[in-house]
Amino acid sequence: MNEEIIKEVINLIENKKIKQLREFLDNINEADFPKIFEELDEEKVIMVYRLLSKEKAAEVFVELDTDDEEKLINCLTDREIKNVMNEIFMDDAVDLIEEMPSNVVKRILANTKIEDRKIINELLKYPEDTAGTIMTTEFMDLKEDMTVKDAFIRIKKKGLRSETVYNSYVLSSDRKLLGMVDIKSLLIADRQSKVKDIMETNIIKAQTLDDQEEIVKLFDKYDVVAVPVVDKENRLVGIITIDDAIDVMQEETAEDFEVMAAMSPTEDSYFKTSVFTHAKNRIVWLLVLMISAMLTGGIIANFEESISALPILVSFIPMLMGTGGNCGSQSSTLIIRGLATDEIPIKDWAKAIWKELRVSIIVGIVLAIINTARITIQYHDFKIALVVSITLVFTVIVAKILGCVLPILSKKLKMDPAIMAAPLLTTLVDATTVLIFFSIVTTAFAI
Amino acid sequence: MNEEIIKEVINLIENKKIKQLREFLDNINEADFPKIFEELDEEKVIMVYRLLSKEKAAEVFVELDTDDEEKLINCLTDREIKNVMNEIFMDDAVDLIEEMPSNVVKRILANTKIEDRKIINELLKYPEDTAGTIMTTEFMDLKEDMTVKDAFIRIKKKGLRSETVYNSYVLSSDRKLLGMVDIKSLLIADRQSKVKDIMETNIIKAQTLDDQEEIVKLFDKYDVVAVPVVDKENRLVGIITIDDAIDVMQEETAEDFEVMAAMSPTEDSYFKTSVFTHAKNRIVWLLVLMISAMLTGGIIANFEESISALPILVSFIPMLMGTGGNCGSQSSTLIIRGLATDEIPIKDWAKAIWKELRVSIIVGIVLAIINTARITIQYHDFKIALVVSITLVFTVIVAKILGCVLPILSKKLKMDPAIMAAPLLTTLVDATTVLIFFSIVTTAFAI
Repeated sequence: MNEEIIKEVINLIENKKIKQLREFLDNINEADFPKIFEELDEEKVIMVYRLLSKEKAAEVFVELDTDDEEKLINCLTDREIKNVMNEIFMDDAVDLIEEMPSNVVKRILANTKIEDRKIINELLKYPEDTAGTIMTTEFMDLKEDMTVKDAFIRIKKKGLRSETVYNSYVLSSDRKLLGMVDIKSLLIADRQSKVKDIMETNIIKAQTLDDQEEIVKLFDKYDVVAVPVVDKENRLVGIITIDDAIDVMQEETAEDFEVMAAMSPTEDSYFKTSVFTHAKNRIVWLLVLMISAMLTGGIIANFEESISALPILVSFIPMLMGTGGNCGSQSSTLIIRGLATDEIPIKDWAKAIWKELRVSIIVGIVLAIINTARITIQYHDFKIALVVSITLVFTVIVAKILGCVLPILSKKLKMDPAIMAAPLLTTLVDATTVLIFFSIVTTAFAI
Repeated sequence: MNEEIIKEVINLIENKKIKQLREFLDNINEADFPKIFEELDEEKVIMVYRLLSKEKAAEVFVELDTDDEEKLINCLTDREIKNVMNEIFMDDAVDLIEEMPSNVVKRILANTKIEDRKIINELLKYPEDTAGTIMTTEFMDLKEDMTVKDAFIRIKKKGLRSETVYNSYVLSSDRKLLGMVDIKSLLIADRQSKVKDIMETNIIKAQTLDDQEEIVKLFDKYDVVAVPVVDKENRLVGIITIDDAIDVMQEETAEDFEVMAAMSPTEDSYFKTSVFTHAKNRIVWLLVLMISAMLTGGIIANFEESISALPILVSFIPMLMGTGGNCGSQSSTLIIRGLATDEIPIKDWAKAIWKELRVSIIVGIVLAIINTARITIQYHDFKIALVVSITLVFTVIVAKILGCVLPILSKKLKMDPAIMAAPLLTTLVDATTVLIFFSIVTTAFAI
């Protein structure tokens, strides 16, 4: 599908069928343009972009990657930039300003209306990752004494300049949020009814400084398509729409995955990130973990005599450490996710530990039985089998308890529980496993 | 907030203020009821539930967990079940039928209208995880020759029985999907315009058998609030709304996390899953990995002589295996996520490997330099330092390449790339690391 579109665009450009190209472009979804632009050289990108209608040009612009936006701006005239800034919504304008280098920002602001510039400056003041930074200021506002008919007149007039008309917000004369009307209620209601009689007053809303992660949960829990954002005096200052909430959801998930795999999170896509940045994002944690792993090495070095006496013991270490690591990773993943999605409320920490303890005992015993059988059959040495299996049970229990306790502790200490995932946890479990193993070995074999 | 609500409900029940309780309940969001019910005993749950209005009762019902739904149904009269089945949307009805035990299903179907029963049966036929299983059949349909005024009359009449009125779908007389109208376009348009003149014909749509994962991507990419689902003849059979898409998104993410931590995925929440089920979900992979880890043990056992001669070497194994595992986990996480989100298209596999190769060389060399310095300082033995560091470079490269290649290979073989995450990968990397290490050791020290 996508490739046919690209072919047709190239074909129309090459045959200079400008009128047809313009029509064809108008029917392409704005979200498909980045892929098309990738296949064209810069000159043709500009040419195609200039064929778009005013509205489409702005819609396409906000779909582009930061790099491409910058390139495009550098080719656009002031008039064209003015058009984009007039058409895009305030949340997109703020994102743009935040991502562009300062010389480009200057040019953008010079081509932005004074009143919009004021709004942008206000929005830029909110701390990172709060509701204020992802909301937009173009919402549909109604008054409580309006009739449904008046409401429709207002929506018809202001609709195009609102990011969404699915919900309208009912404000008092001092802009306090009194209620919310879904478009369905308006459409079904009698045209002479008053807005105040059909509005909902029990509104799902956020405050400007609320954490964006908490806001995303509101969308998920209450199945809303927009959340109004109020200031401390309950004055409506913006709305967050569901498309932006989904973006935040994706970002937060990506960040969790990256942190849980011992990387510094990045906002750029895989291929857009340079090899050096990739290396940098990964090296810090690798170093920390490499140095921590030396602890385990140090413990082993302390038992050199046992190793010399019974070198076969060493061959069980990978299995013990591996199983411990995997057990810990299972528990920590479940707990980290549970904390992130509120499935495991922090107040239920004892319940979670109790659950993990019981699970770990069952898992440990089952693995130990199979392991005892395996080693006894292979080496005909029940004593070694027993020593390894007892270690295994302890390792599984310790790994699962640590995998449960550490993320909860992080959360209590207001740190990101995700850093307590497999990599760091495994390093700790490795050291514990080796210590347990050699303690049992030295006792059992008196070496 | 939530706790105050619960307290007030309990207070009103205890003081038998039924009228006030009824009013109070009506103002509580349906999504908050599961938490409230958790705090009440069964008798009080039924009492509270019976105080709800017809519509609210159905809304609250679909918010409950499967267990609670079952319990509630067993206490409801046939008439009450009939009411729920009349009010809920078809996608929720299908979910309910799929999750209930057969005796409950019989009772539910006996209290469902014949025409709805037919629809439910049709929907139940779609294979798991396809668009057909998550769509609902209550959509707003218009004809192309209607005027905007006619459209509003139809919406007013049918609106309550449509899951959403944000989008209306324009159908031909044989129910083929011709176009889509957003409610904003309708509201802004002249009331005498024809629907066909304002409808969009370039529609983002899905087919009944499309994979639900692919559909979720449409919502993310195109910022739509609903996706129409057509059959092979382009007849509209249902729509998928964004709230269900978000649920799928969350489910798929949870599944990825679980598979990547070597667990069988489960749909139940952490605390609702029994200890035995938790143990069962985790044991299978642990066993597979435990047995695979014996491969690494076997390799070590083969080098017993080297170990006896130079037991200090063993103390470097945890650091080498740990670093290898972490490097592999970093790469595989990025690749698995990239494949899942289409950030890394499968056709770009060579580009990804080339990137990982360059990253791994930089990372390997940096870690090796630091490691050489550390060992030389600690043990005053440059030769051992060199052997360990050379192994480290190879390990990092092998781990990162495997972490990149294995998920891509899985995807090519139509398997879930997520199973190639850290646990399985680490086991492979461990074996490789140990093999590389002892190969270099035996060569360097001639033991």
